[in-house]
Amino acid sequence: MNKDVSRIIEDYASRGEVSIATLSSHSSLQILHGAKKEGFKTLLVTLASREWFYRQFDHIVDKFIVVNGWKELCTGKVLEELRRENAVMVPHGSIIEYVGLECAENIPVPYFGNRYLFRVESDQRLKMQYLVESGIKTPRIYKYGGEIDKLVIVKLPGAKGGKGYFLSRSSTHIKEKLEQMAKEGAIKSVDDVIIQEYVIGTPAYFHYFYSPVLNRVEVLGADIRYESNVDGLRRVPLKYLAEDVEPSFVVTGNLPLVVRESLLPTILEYGIKFVEYTRKQSPPGAIGPFCLESVVRDDLEIVVFEFSGRIVAGTNLYVSGSPYSYLYWDEPMSVGRRIARELKLALKAASLEKVLT
Amino acid sequence: MNKDVSRIIEDYASRGEVSIATLSSHSSLQILHGAKKEGFKTLLVTLASREWFYRQFDHIVDKFIVVNGWKELCTGKVLEELRRENAVMVPHGSIIEYVGLECAENIPVPYFGNRYLFRVESDQRLKMQYLVESGIKTPRIYKYGGEIDKLVIVKLPGAKGGKGYFLSRSSTHIKEKLEQMAKEGAIKSVDDVIIQEYVIGTPAYFHYFYSPVLNRVEVLGADIRYESNVDGLRRVPLKYLAEDVEPSFVVTGNLPLVVRESLLPTILEYGIKFVEYTRKQSPPGAIGPFCLESVVRDDLEIVVFEFSGRIVAGTNLYVSGSPYSYLYWDEPMSVGRRIARELKLALKAASLEKVLT
Amino acid sequence: MNKDVSRIIEDYASRGEVSIATLSSHSSLQILHGAKKEGFKTLLVTLASREWFYRQFDHIVDKFIVVNGWKELCTGKVLEELRRENAVMVPHGSIIEYVGLECAENIPVPYFGNRYLFRVESDQRLKMQYLVESGIKTPRIYKYGGEIDKLVIVKLPGAKGGKGYFLSRSSTHIKEKLEQMAKEGAIKSVDDVIIQEYVIGTPAYFHYFYSPVLNRVEVLGADIRYESNVDGLRRVPLKYLAEDVEPSFVVTGNLPLVVRESLLPTILEYGIKFVEYTRKQSPPGAIGPFCLESVVRDDLEIVVFEFSGRIVAGTNLYVSGSPYSYLYWDEPMSVGRRIARELKLALKAASLEKVLT
Repeated sequence: MNKDVSRIIEDYASRGEVSIATLSSHSSLQILHGAKKEGFKTLLVTLASREWFYRQFDHIVDKFIVVNGWKELCTGKVLEELRRENAVMVPHGSIIEYVGLECAENIPVPYFGNRYLFRVESDQRLKMQYLVESGIKTPRIYKYGGEIDKLVIVKLPGAKGGKGYFLSRSSTHIKEKLEQMAKEGAIKSVDDVIIQEYVIGTPAYFHYFYSPVLNRVEVLGADIRYESNVDGLRRVPLKYLAEDVEPSFVVTGNLPLVVRESLLPTILEYGIKFVEYTRKQSPPGAIGPFCLESVVRDDLEIVVFEFSGRIVAGTNLYVSGSPYSYLYWDEPMSVGRRIARELKLALKAASLEKVLT
Repeated sequence: MNKDVSRIIEDYASRGEVSIATLSSHSSLQILHGAKKEGFKTLLVTLASREWFYRQFDHIVDKFIVVNGWKELCTGKVLEELRRENAVMVPHGSIIEYVGLECAENIPVPYFGNRYLFRVESDQRLKMQYLVESGIKTPRIYKYGGEIDKLVIVKLPGAKGGKGYFLSRSSTHIKEKLEQMAKEGAIKSVDDVIIQEYVIGTPAYFHYFYSPVLNRVEVLGADIRYESNVDGLRRVPLKYLAEDVEPSFVVTGNLPLVVRESLLPTILEYGIKFVEYTRKQSPPGAIGPFCLESVVRDDLEIVVFEFSGRIVAGTNLYVSGSPYSYLYWDEPMSVGRRIARELKLALKAASLEKVLT
Repeated sequence: MNKDVSRIIEDYASRGEVSIATLSSHSSLQILHGAKKEGFKTLLVTLASREWFYRQFDHIVDKFIVVNGWKELCTGKVLEELRRENAVMVPHGSIIEYVGLECAENIPVPYFGNRYLFRVESDQRLKMQYLVESGIKTPRIYKYGGEIDKLVIVKLPGAKGGKGYFLSRSSTHIKEKLEQMAKEGAIKSVDDVIIQEYVIGTPAYFHYFYSPVLNRVEVLGADIRYESNVDGLRRVPLKYLAEDVEPSFVVTGNLPLVVRESLLPTILEYGIKFVEYTRKQSPPGAIGPFCLESVVRDDLEIVVFEFSGRIVAGTNLYVSGSPYSYLYWDEPMSVGRRIARELKLALKAASLEKVLT
């Protein structure tokens, strides 16, 4: 591990007190709310332009750190302030988009979770490799330029909420479309995209939490992404649609879901396999929240087409607990609060180093 | 303001005690439940034919006022009883449909909220004008008989839960359909309908609450309408559908939703703009619950195609609180309960006149 | 009633203490969680292969009874253990699939609920007859081989979560498909299937609870089934679908829903009618949880196409209470907990025989 960060963690541990910090986006309100429920001091790093909004919630934010651009997070002043407050940063889906992989990966402030997964998550191919090698069922991947014999979805690099993803049944169509995107600068190279079998079934995103302190994987919830325009298009009969309207997959929100109970053992098994694999491949492995993004086929096979190594926005549905978190905790336990609870347990057990990197 | 009502409000204020009344429909169970949670006496005006049903919930209704027709609400006896109980009426989406605009507007019993918005809400054109002049992004409106270059939805006047709305791409089709409706008496005049661009994206309805006592706008929830038959049709492959099956948009229920956190600042901004505009245009402006009904496009623009100046049925999802109301209140706070809480805060601050009209 | 069971119930009653048992599937976590909340000892009969999973929840399971096959439930050892613990079995949707109708019906351990409805539920025709004779609006049923003038859904016998159901508009197509299924052994005889008008509208499943102790029917929730692949197909534009992809209806999860309040009186009326009819036709009639599975048409008529005489998986959405259960109970009341509450009330009132068969 980065020596600076190790030393900071030791330092925090010796003082026995930490605060929880995050960036004003994605799932920050849930994270802050959960941190306060567990009694932590909270810090919010926010763009000046959004400060007014987050000030509405100043009962769950103890300190605002206002920046004019996200990249300020990578510079001395903000970092010093965070460390002065013994801040643990909770990374969410927006951090890499905001500050870039280089900064996010190297920031000398401890993260709750494993920073060594950021790089994996940013690389569509590596991401799929992790799933495959974990022993999780995944969709077929097609080579660019090769023959396409099924419906596929073409995914662009980065975690931009599905922006630019498209469907296809033809390798010529894919080639044309990607070359144009490369020309327009929307993608750097066609090598960065991934062409994946589009699995027909019900989309379902499973929210996991791996607790190093309790040494267990919890299934804390599930959701469905609510995507524009594809989830609106289906309300419009074909005859009313102009022929050139294509489905797009931009995430605009999330819908709650419970899954058939008989699927839960497989779902948990997948989560455990993922933790075990990442422990070997990217030590110390997954810590805290992660998500397996899947489709359930009509033969009840669960096919995972993506993962998130951090808290996902679908957990925002469950600020006051999910049907699953109630089964484990029997109190209103969001994933945001679960993070804070784990941190509290780690502090109590003098095992801060187990949950931070 | 109506002098009678002003005097009644003064009268209530001097006694320092009010009860909460509503009509047995729409969101009445939520309103009554919330009122009891805040310690108010509750009254339910109900049709005799529905009394048996609402008697199931007599633990949240202190007094039933049974009528044989809704119009009795506009006559002396019911009104006297309401005033004798210091009743504040909570208006919901059914009131104008039940008693007519004339009666609803002039009833000499105080409303929680702004009665001067009833008239605006009943007029599709005026309603859209309010949104536009608030500075909120709205869909394009087409003139009847003019050229149609996009998919449009044709909306009939009144708040009848989407009944009779239809899609079109052709001004001839619209003309034929409306003329037939006029002939059948379904609409009084083609001038009452509104022809609106059908925005492609994800529908999302945002539940707001403006608190005059705390002087802030809260975003308390979001929902998606569950409409018959359009939300059933999409389960049927085209080849199985008879060609003449047309989508219809009758609201049968509501589905819960959380939105992408990065959209929240715009959502709140829209709510604030709406309150500010109505304050000038229909003083004292929006009070308590209102709703902006929108579509989120795949470029993440939020386009509002309608508003409700009162509590919407989508809030029935959150009888024990929503993911958003938890962030503000950290207790099970429905919109029904929020109304009662505001009334309590106003009583305490001796500012009853701020929330009633 | 079966004399053995009567005697056992008397025996339990005299000891004034019972435990709650169920099979590890379907809604068992909810049932166990609810039982613990009400202070009962809990037993879980589980397949050895699933034990590891359910051990994650050993805080809500007091005793595991591990079997190598479900049929062991029908043999002496497991039964003795259950009776020794004064176990009341809570039957759910999986029991008949697991142990067969013969065993499920005759097992000498008391059920919470009415075991005489198992046989009705297993027979598609009888099931529909019960609904029709209750006075509930149902879809038209077509005779095999007769003329088909509408879209129909063809349903196979048994409660296998929609597996094998298919749509059709042609009696020839149905004939071919069923004959092939019979040949493949997927169905025993074409006489076991039911051909039902496919009602266009919004699917809505209503969760009821009949309380013999309080003598009332409660509407505790509503859900929508999330079915593979039909709920995934609708995200794929027609032009991308291979022509031979057919919708399938395998339940993979459930989505929460609230219904228009003005529909609730009819919904409750249907529930009451069902209880009254089953009381005459299958005494002692429905007890505890049941479900009416419906479509709401755009004229707001509610058409019921199936019922479940036991707890349905859709109630898993509401482990910490539903919008409806809050209105009745104002505490986190799942259907699983409601069962335990009823058992507690029955014990207190020395009326155990009212809720067990």
